[in-house]
Amino acid sequence: MSEKYTTIHYHNYLELDALLSLQKERSKALGEAAHDETLFIIMHQVCELWFKQILTELDSVILLFREERVREDNMHTVLLRLRRINSIIDLLIEQVKVMETMTPLDFLDFRDYLFPASGFQSWQFRMIETTLGLREEDRLTYHGKSYKIVFTEEQKAHLTDIERSGSLFDLVARWLERTPFLRFRGFDFLSAYKEAVERMIARDQQHIRDSELSPKMKEMRLRVLGDTTTYFRHVLDREEHERMVAAGEARLSYDATIAALLINLYRDQPILNIPFQLLTELMVIDEGLTTWRYRHAQMVMRMIGNKIGTGGSSGHDYLARTAEQHKIFRDLHNISSLLIPRSALPDLPEELARGLGFHFRGK
Amino acid sequence: MSEKYTTIHYHNYLELDALLSLQKERSKALGEAAHDETLFIIMHQVCELWFKQILTELDSVILLFREERVREDNMHTVLLRLRRINSIIDLLIEQVKVMETMTPLDFLDFRDYLFPASGFQSWQFRMIETTLGLREEDRLTYHGKSYKIVFTEEQKAHLTDIERSGSLFDLVARWLERTPFLRFRGFDFLSAYKEAVERMIARDQQHIRDSELSPKMKEMRLRVLGDTTTYFRHVLDREEHERMVAAGEARLSYDATIAALLINLYRDQPILNIPFQLLTELMVIDEGLTTWRYRHAQMVMRMIGNKIGTGGSSGHDYLARTAEQHKIFRDLHNISSLLIPRSALPDLPEELARGLGFHFRGK
Amino acid sequence: MSEKYTTIHYHNYLELDALLSLQKERSKALGEAAHDETLFIIMHQVCELWFKQILTELDSVILLFREERVREDNMHTVLLRLRRINSIIDLLIEQVKVMETMTPLDFLDFRDYLFPASGFQSWQFRMIETTLGLREEDRLTYHGKSYKIVFTEEQKAHLTDIERSGSLFDLVARWLERTPFLRFRGFDFLSAYKEAVERMIARDQQHIRDSELSPKMKEMRLRVLGDTTTYFRHVLDREEHERMVAAGEARLSYDATIAALLINLYRDQPILNIPFQLLTELMVIDEGLTTWRYRHAQMVMRMIGNKIGTGGSSGHDYLARTAEQHKIFRDLHNISSLLIPRSALPDLPEELARGLGFHFRGK
Amino acid sequence: MSEKYTTIHYHNYLELDALLSLQKERSKALGEAAHDETLFIIMHQVCELWFKQILTELDSVILLFREERVREDNMHTVLLRLRRINSIIDLLIEQVKVMETMTPLDFLDFRDYLFPASGFQSWQFRMIETTLGLREEDRLTYHGKSYKIVFTEEQKAHLTDIERSGSLFDLVARWLERTPFLRFRGFDFLSAYKEAVERMIARDQQHIRDSELSPKMKEMRLRVLGDTTTYFRHVLDREEHERMVAAGEARLSYDATIAALLINLYRDQPILNIPFQLLTELMVIDEGLTTWRYRHAQMVMRMIGNKIGTGGSSGHDYLARTAEQHKIFRDLHNISSLLIPRSALPDLPEELARGLGFHFRGK
Repeated sequence: MSEKYTTIHYHNYLELDALLSLQKERSKALGEAAHDETLFIIMHQVCELWFKQILTELDSVILLFREERVREDNMHTVLLRLRRINSIIDLLIEQVKVMETMTPLDFLDFRDYLFPASGFQSWQFRMIETTLGLREEDRLTYHGKSYKIVFTEEQKAHLTDIERSGSLFDLVARWLERTPFLRFRGFDFLSAYKEAVERMIARDQQHIRDSELSPKMKEMRLRVLGDTTTYFRHVLDREEHERMVAAGEARLSYDATIAALLINLYRDQPILNIPFQLLTELMVIDEGLTTWRYRHAQMVMRMIGNKIGTGGSSGHDYLARTAEQHKIFRDLHNISSLLIPRSALPDLPEELARGLGFHFRGK
Repeated sequence: MSEKYTTIHYHNYLELDALLSLQKERSKALGEAAHDETLFIIMHQVCELWFKQILTELDSVILLFREERVREDNMHTVLLRLRRINSIIDLLIEQVKVMETMTPLDFLDFRDYLFPASGFQSWQFRMIETTLGLREEDRLTYHGKSYKIVFTEEQKAHLTDIERSGSLFDLVARWLERTPFLRFRGFDFLSAYKEAVERMIARDQQHIRDSELSPKMKEMRLRVLGDTTTYFRHVLDREEHERMVAAGEARLSYDATIAALLINLYRDQPILNIPFQLLTELMVIDEGLTTWRYRHAQMVMRMIGNKIGTGGSSGHDYLARTAEQHKIFRDLHNISSLLIPRSALPDLPEELARGLGFHFRGK
Repeated sequence: MSEKYTTIHYHNYLELDALLSLQKERSKALGEAAHDETLFIIMHQVCELWFKQILTELDSVILLFREERVREDNMHTVLLRLRRINSIIDLLIEQVKVMETMTPLDFLDFRDYLFPASGFQSWQFRMIETTLGLREEDRLTYHGKSYKIVFTEEQKAHLTDIERSGSLFDLVARWLERTPFLRFRGFDFLSAYKEAVERMIARDQQHIRDSELSPKMKEMRLRVLGDTTTYFRHVLDREEHERMVAAGEARLSYDATIAALLINLYRDQPILNIPFQLLTELMVIDEGLTTWRYRHAQMVMRMIGNKIGTGGSSGHDYLARTAEQHKIFRDLHNISSLLIPRSALPDLPEELARGLGFHFRGK
Repeated sequence: MSEKYTTIHYHNYLELDALLSLQKERSKALGEAAHDETLFIIMHQVCELWFKQILTELDSVILLFREERVREDNMHTVLLRLRRINSIIDLLIEQVKVMETMTPLDFLDFRDYLFPASGFQSWQFRMIETTLGLREEDRLTYHGKSYKIVFTEEQKAHLTDIERSGSLFDLVARWLERTPFLRFRGFDFLSAYKEAVERMIARDQQHIRDSELSPKMKEMRLRVLGDTTTYFRHVLDREEHERMVAAGEARLSYDATIAALLINLYRDQPILNIPFQLLTELMVIDEGLTTWRYRHAQMVMRMIGNKIGTGGSSGHDYLARTAEQHKIFRDLHNISSLLIPRSALPDLPEELARGLGFHFRGK
């Protein structure tokens, strides 16, 4: 007998009786009911429901990524789930507009009852950041204290567990390091690429010298080009990169960085299509969370101006600063500065190119 | 002693322990856990939370509107709350994109467990429609039965109560009928307007005859103009209007219609600024709900194609048809066809114009 | 000498002097300047610029698809370009909100000057529809005449060329028909799938009979299941399908349909990742254009109510009907109704499964 | 004879032949055509068309505001036009997503041809900022030079004209200063408000002392309250405010600030409805432009990483900094920190309250 064939009503399936009784306005309980408190509660409950969904997706992605050799036929599922996360973040950004229909004066009607509650105390949001790869040392301190101080022991322990068990950043980094194409039967991608860069720069120098630009403009463009040369030499150098990692200026290892570079350059090879899309979605997550924090900062500014927030923080500044600082996949964005035009790219050895496509061996 | 000064944590304020335990996946309980069921549940729970917020706003607006003479200093609050509803509806429309990250194949992993649950069973959504003014007779029947059959006796009774106690449509209609400017000290708006319409049409006829258009084009334009004349005579006639109302072709009474026309034409008079904005927001609500239903219909089409929905309905068609038919403030949209250009408008008598502005009598 | 190294100013690069002089308000030229006419012109010019971009992408995609054997390493580019088209359509939908900031009364200030100009006369939009695959016979007639009557001979000829040279629909259909996996070394996908469907239905029947459902509910569910059985037999039958195509109920050939079904079911196989994403984007294009037409219809309704449009059409109804009828990739949406849960899917023969992955043969 | 009755075709009205020939790809002209350059051009042309529309609205608003006594019956028009500007800015923000469909590698295919063109050279955007009220001294310098250096003499002169002729900020400030309600027949708003603030704080102190909070928490809350007291005394003091203005910490005069405060507090009085909405839209413009700059900064980061932009700038950092610094109506946001809850507000004298409503004197 299968219980699959029992029936269920929408109302019960969604637990609506319970769900719709969880909006407990403190203004109503402790003083005079403030009309807009319901909105305030529902807004935040909706955020937390979406946070739960984001965590559900992230946890599943981490599970798929944690296998020693990420299964090829899971990559697409990973991609779809990251894309779903971005779709949810887009919605959270839009949602700020709903919050902005609450005026500062209406907020004042119940603001005092909330002390010291604050979005800073959202455990799920911290879990999202930590699961993605934001480390304690990357975070802005908050009045000089750990962001964890507002949580229970159990919640703290859970956050620490996530920190220890390997974030999505770590898993992606290791997966990149395993990319098998960097050195292949005499084709050394890195050497070929460095040569291509030198060739491109030499050609550009010649073009500038031969051009009809004014001497002053020639000088300026040559100087820019010189900077580019230095930049490439600098960045493509393993030791220099390791120094940057040690100094906290980069986080992704040298090998992972070069692998990400290769994926960006040869993304049209079938085997690299999905990896490229996946790296893109990770950057979009970073961008989306950044925009969300920034919009949040604006909303706080509009709501309370310069005064301190319900959690005792100077909300706008703190949030605006996290927007810039709490980026996780910054290194992927920086890959852009290492790219050279396709016309200057070294061709892949034919054997390698064939290896990157599909080979339906049945035939 | 004031309880205002107790403290509260974000986590407890939002009842997060309870909230985040209400996602009870039936696939997990009755068979094999389907990854996407959590999304499905959260999506719908978020919708219901927003529905609760919309109802909260609508109920408050109805309360403000129900007073015998709507207080002038409440009108702005009404406007802000209607605008908030529209902001929420915009978000619900965006949210369809999140649902669309679920593929039909993933939905199949748990779809059978949901039988016969369906969005058709959302009590709150029916309350929203009914509160706005959708009557039982305006609704598409559903396999020939009342939309109420899926609800409990208590829920049905509540819907009937709303139907009887006066919808927002009814309250707005009565408020329009009370507009005091239609006949004022010898200025009869309606007569003046009818004359202006006739004058405008006569002038346009002359212009067409005098123009360099080809005879065929002249004839065509004169015919169009003739239709317009008939249309205006038809619509501005009280008896004809009452016939339309009796036949279900219009719903707003003649007086309310003319008042809405006046508000649209003279919206720049300070006293009419807010009424004009208010009528606009009502139309936007209609448009928003229509778009939402339509996007919902598309999503159902993508998810299950032509097959019947979980509630036994052919989901896409039903939803697409409700999109067109379940409009409530259609009559307000039709006001547009009664407008004439400002250049042809009768001037207001000076005394009336002054009466429509602010008079700071202190001076 | 390379001209690459000349310099260019943003203002000249974008031809801003010319671009910003193309807003020629007719109200200003022929009568009294109407403030909102500039908005009206710019709105439509922006639409046409985006239409040009959509056509640019579509033409490039068609070129890539037209090769006898679509090159594997072009598929990703095709995908990115279709996705860009969808990103533009999303923006066009948002743009309707800007248009809606124009009130009907403001439109009246210049509406008469536009006669009989209308969006119906947008040549580029017709090219987009035709390039995607909308045929003359699929279109709503417009007062019984071809949609082409409003164009010049040259424009008509161009549209006819597109119709003849093979639309994106046709190219995708042929590409699907070439899918090589339908019959492979004794694995006959279609037979295996039909058996799986029968097995699933038999099992479901048994579960319903064994369940604790009421006799009435059992009967109902068995009836639904019976319909499903009939449906599958019906649709998976080649002759029946060919009858549907002949009758205009389906457009995609039987082989193309089955290939699309296979791609949906086994989308996680690496070789099918991109094809699956591609089919998804085509459905999204259809959905997006439908939503855009529908929003457009709403905007026309708000602007002019029930009266006839500037082009002499009853704008709202025409647009609302094109929204439903001018869908092109409808058959792809209907694939959803042919899917069965993954748990009931036939396993691929191991050899085939391996053939669908990447084989880096260098090792 | 009226030329109104000539006919016009959509294609000619919109100057489509000219418009669609203005996309002059430099990659095609000077080297190998890069597919994505068309997108790049169209994106920016669309931006510039919207900028023209924003300027059209701003100029009309400024004209309406420049009259000695702003006409009451123009205020609503001003509001609708500011709202339209915000609707356009929302669209420009969405448009960044379309640009992000261009990958860095695709940009490289034509990036070198654009040197040194850059969005920094958009004259219209500078006009928008200047018209709103951004002064030369408020701007980030750019390599130590005026933002005007990239423009022609004529363009520079035009920008200087705008700076001199009075920005929207200036006009709004003067309009606020003229608000007639601050001192009225013995009702001195400011004194009454200061008293209300003191009363509220005294009551809150008492509540805290009487509460069951822990001594430590009491002390903390009393300290916060003390800060609030200091803050209010500080800000409501004319001399202190004038010092802030002199020091560049505030821009709005003391009288204008107090008027904006009054409008926020008593916004429900009919005469203040529209002024309140107007101040809100000005803040939304600031927020919107800020978000747009910030999204732009993110896009530049994704496109070129840390390297210098086509204009020789380190694009991301410059743009991210302008986002924070180029706010114009910051002072309006800060009003929020001066508000007190409605329950603590001084009642208006009855005579004043009546004066703020509509008085239909005809009766």
